[in-house]
Amino acid sequence: MSDISELRSTFKPRNPDYQQRVRDSFERQGVMRLIGAELSRIGPGEVDIRIAYTDQLSQQHGFFHGGILSTIADSACGYAAFSLMPADAAVLTIEFKTNFLAPADGELLIARGRIVKPGRTISVSHAQVLVTKNGQERLCATMTATNMTIYDKVKE
Amino acid sequence: MSDISELRSTFKPRNPDYQQRVRDSFERQGVMRLIGAELSRIGPGEVDIRIAYTDQLSQQHGFFHGGILSTIADSACGYAAFSLMPADAAVLTIEFKTNFLAPADGELLIARGRIVKPGRTISVSHAQVLVTKNGQERLCATMTATNMTIYDKVKE
Amino acid sequence: MSDISELRSTFKPRNPDYQQRVRDSFERQGVMRLIGAELSRIGPGEVDIRIAYTDQLSQQHGFFHGGILSTIADSACGYAAFSLMPADAAVLTIEFKTNFLAPADGELLIARGRIVKPGRTISVSHAQVLVTKNGQERLCATMTATNMTIYDKVKE
Amino acid sequence: MSDISELRSTFKPRNPDYQQRVRDSFERQGVMRLIGAELSRIGPGEVDIRIAYTDQLSQQHGFFHGGILSTIADSACGYAAFSLMPADAAVLTIEFKTNFLAPADGELLIARGRIVKPGRTISVSHAQVLVTKNGQERLCATMTATNMTIYDKVKE
Repeated sequence: MSDISELRSTFKPRNPDYQQRVRDSFERQGVMRLIGAELSRIGPGEVDIRIAYTDQLSQQHGFFHGGILSTIADSACGYAAFSLMPADAAVLTIEFKTNFLAPADGELLIARGRIVKPGRTISVSHAQVLVTKNGQERLCATMTATNMTIYDKVKE
Repeated sequence: MSDISELRSTFKPRNPDYQQRVRDSFERQGVMRLIGAELSRIGPGEVDIRIAYTDQLSQQHGFFHGGILSTIADSACGYAAFSLMPADAAVLTIEFKTNFLAPADGELLIARGRIVKPGRTISVSHAQVLVTKNGQERLCATMTATNMTIYDKVKE
Repeated sequence: MSDISELRSTFKPRNPDYQQRVRDSFERQGVMRLIGAELSRIGPGEVDIRIAYTDQLSQQHGFFHGGILSTIADSACGYAAFSLMPADAAVLTIEFKTNFLAPADGELLIARGRIVKPGRTISVSHAQVLVTKNGQERLCATMTATNMTIYDKVKE
Repeated sequence: MSDISELRSTFKPRNPDYQQRVRDSFERQGVMRLIGAELSRIGPGEVDIRIAYTDQLSQQHGFFHGGILSTIADSACGYAAFSLMPADAAVLTIEFKTNFLAPADGELLIARGRIVKPGRTISVSHAQVLVTKNGQERLCATMTATNMTIYDKVKE
């Protein structure tokens, strides 16, 4: 399939401050600091998160651990959905599935989350996770995630 | 459903040193040290991994991040499969899916990985992830994972 | 893992007529008649659906098609969730995932759907699909499904 | 995301007769005749399957049953993978996951299966399922599927 980063989003944000809201929520995710992840793109229904390799992120063969891929892809999908939610809403993950296509062997990992179907209660997003080694980018995982909009229970 | 920890495994390990092999491979997963995870059970087709809460593992509401749940559940499932593999085999994750059933709000998280179907090439495992708060244990996520046995490509 | 059919449900139905409601809804599923499926158990949070083999249900090797397994497992999970819903609610499937563990080679297929986590809006169920050949029952697939309770949009 | 049907495949078939092999295998799937499905496109790594609505394919609200969506999407993904396999290989489904985005309410259903990552043993495909009502086409489900190449066990 073509590179997901070229796909144009046609979704309109309902909250003009959606970028700041995504940044504020991301800052509260302690795990993102722990693993050294950063937001590298915030568009309407489109969020990228990237992370540089360190030995602290490895599985047993010295590649990025699948859980780390899933951690940034989960947040990229969740924030892609969150970017289209109203200003008073919070977001939770209902489920996600990750397919590992190639070893995540490289210096840089990027998860590109894109909304597939925004909804009042249920949103579905897709992510591609790419790893860069010696300047070559390679698709190493995909995720499909279901997120739920919460209107009153949890403070974002 | 009943507590998965009560289910008796009837699988026989093909490698008598399977516990040591799981421990050795786990030690090489840098991410497990980073997040403070530890192996708390290794049986034939049965591996538990647990982790204590710190703010460094949080999502935006102060609960364990879904990616952290998935990280320990992925390893618990992978090592449950690995424990039944021959001595010269390595294990890779093909895919996993996580369903989040309740907020992972608590002091201690434990992922109980159990083999469902071991196979020569493809194994399927299931994990329950439980969170303990004020002494009360609660099921907060389930995972189904598919692992592949690698016989020559990667050194475990 | 142990046989899922032995696991005792502790869930209480909120609608005393839940069995009749499940039967009525099942009768409206045209596809169940087409493929010859029948309800073989309705308990609180527990629904079994079974089907006898015919060549009309085959994939290319003469086994039950994976789509047929998923069709009855989807309904078994959905009705397991539906059995615990209030009398005015309807049920929709948000997503499901099927893992195929062994060829569905046999005369009889049974999907055992069991609720894992009932919720006001979101419920999660698990199914085991077993195939019987020459009197031997074998686990051939598992499913995890997420269902949504609909309170006003769709008439069940 | 953009329409998956516009994405160009760059994969080369290893078997020049791949279209005939897909057709021959499809003909052996009894369930495709039962539900009235037909192959509407066979390219390298790209297979479409469509089906017209009848009451025999319904769930309880009169829409296409989710199991029927999954049945044609499973075959579309499996044959997308199969189209790139060598001439002596057979294909099995390891797992698939379906997300339901909108009711499958309409006259015509089409599943567009596209290979994401072909592999010697493991291939991953993605499908979009679209429903047409009054001439309007709408995305109603997506699937990610993992297929396995079998070289000697099963005759295709």
